[in-house]
Amino acid sequence: MSPAKVDDDGQRGWIIPVGGAEDKVRGREILKRFLKVSGGSDARIAVIPTASALPDTGMRYVTLFRDLGARDAMSLNYAERSDAGNPAWAAFLETCTGIFLTGGNQLRISTILGGTPVAKSIRRLSAAGVTVGGTSAGAAILSEHMIAFGKSGATPKAGMSSLAPGFGLTNRVIIDQHFRQRDRLGRLLTALAYNPFAVGIGLDEDTAAFLDPDEVLHVVGAGAITVVDVAALGHSSISTVAEGKPVCLTNVRLHILTHGATFDFHTREAKAPE
Amino acid sequence: MSPAKVDDDGQRGWIIPVGGAEDKVRGREILKRFLKVSGGSDARIAVIPTASALPDTGMRYVTLFRDLGARDAMSLNYAERSDAGNPAWAAFLETCTGIFLTGGNQLRISTILGGTPVAKSIRRLSAAGVTVGGTSAGAAILSEHMIAFGKSGATPKAGMSSLAPGFGLTNRVIIDQHFRQRDRLGRLLTALAYNPFAVGIGLDEDTAAFLDPDEVLHVVGAGAITVVDVAALGHSSISTVAEGKPVCLTNVRLHILTHGATFDFHTREAKAPE
Repeated sequence: MSPAKVDDDGQRGWIIPVGGAEDKVRGREILKRFLKVSGGSDARIAVIPTASALPDTGMRYVTLFRDLGARDAMSLNYAERSDAGNPAWAAFLETCTGIFLTGGNQLRISTILGGTPVAKSIRRLSAAGVTVGGTSAGAAILSEHMIAFGKSGATPKAGMSSLAPGFGLTNRVIIDQHFRQRDRLGRLLTALAYNPFAVGIGLDEDTAAFLDPDEVLHVVGAGAITVVDVAALGHSSISTVAEGKPVCLTNVRLHILTHGATFDFHTREAKAPE
Repeated sequence: MSPAKVDDDGQRGWIIPVGGAEDKVRGREILKRFLKVSGGSDARIAVIPTASALPDTGMRYVTLFRDLGARDAMSLNYAERSDAGNPAWAAFLETCTGIFLTGGNQLRISTILGGTPVAKSIRRLSAAGVTVGGTSAGAAILSEHMIAFGKSGATPKAGMSSLAPGFGLTNRVIIDQHFRQRDRLGRLLTALAYNPFAVGIGLDEDTAAFLDPDEVLHVVGAGAITVVDVAALGHSSISTVAEGKPVCLTNVRLHILTHGATFDFHTREAKAPE
């Protein structure tokens, strides 16, 4: 599923991957800002809890978004591929101003919604201006190439991360989450080493990348975002390295960005918070 | 790298994945047809032998295409990422009518050319009407999601195939090659099970999928193409299955297509040879 085309006179919506475990009880900074860029008090939020195996995940976010002032919120709990035809959920999706995908297992989202009209609608709505975000598994699914699973550790090793197709709202990034907490620099570098065309975005917990319609990323939250830029990569040895052995990568550029910092995908420039 | 946009009044070029070991001495059917849809006697063929570690692979195809009547052919042997800036090769690429990627290791192509101006040019030229084909590794690299490596066997098993980003000339298919010879149905099914939005194309050796600009696939060659259509997939268990265990998939549709058969990606209809 590649990114849907944005109309010449239109603007793509915000894309907001969150690193998981975002604050839900105190300042709720990330969820508040998500709501703000989804229409604020006029927001109608579709919550998709498909990644989660727990029965109350969707309603928990519905309550949160209503408490924060959303005009409406509804949980669209797609649990089987046949659920993609649910007409009430399709109707809500078509009129929503924001879509939020919860955490769980990203392969639940891709296996249940991949290739269905729901996945196609989400791409189309994103291209038409609707905000789409997600936390943890819901963050991973947003890009064209997603990390499906992998191993921990800071050094990239052949076979350390496994990719699968995601929703394809953007093809500029490969996203990883729980980044510092689960020691995932190695698996993000491994994912980028296969084909160094994308930018790696490693999201700490309670930290979000607010990617605006002009392709500038704004960091929001308590942790950091590790941006891995391989535009100037000199060499990747991953085509010759045996499984489990370290991969040689030269000229990787890293930015560790905290709340208020930005990264521009056009110029590839990072700016510290003002 | 997602598919480049095709101009409203333009037409994408042919995309031609070959299953490897195509006949190079007798009828040379596949290479002849490749040349034909690349301009015939006016064809200028850029051969990219980056997948191969052997020094003479590129020149072998240059000789073959010249013997078959191409106006010109040149080997662009990108062997390091810094080679992407070679001005003579860039100039030939810009004026070629067909691009052929040889076999070898697809991760050599993606690690050496991924994210470089060469990869971007190939996408742009394909969208502008230039024929792009490749054999074995050169076939795998053509699509957005490529099988980087995997295990043999007919039954899909979790972790059996590893995906990486390819050149992204099309995002409709996931390609596998040496299909019958290396017993690869399982790894193709596994690749599709992650996110069942694409169509699987399993290419036997000496067999090619000629994907025309109207998204109709024409089978050419001595073997078969196994088309795996998961549009009506009922269930995929890959999100819950442990590594190495079989994956449950329901309602997979297969077509085994031989020389002269077609498959239409719009209608998802297969037609036997007339």
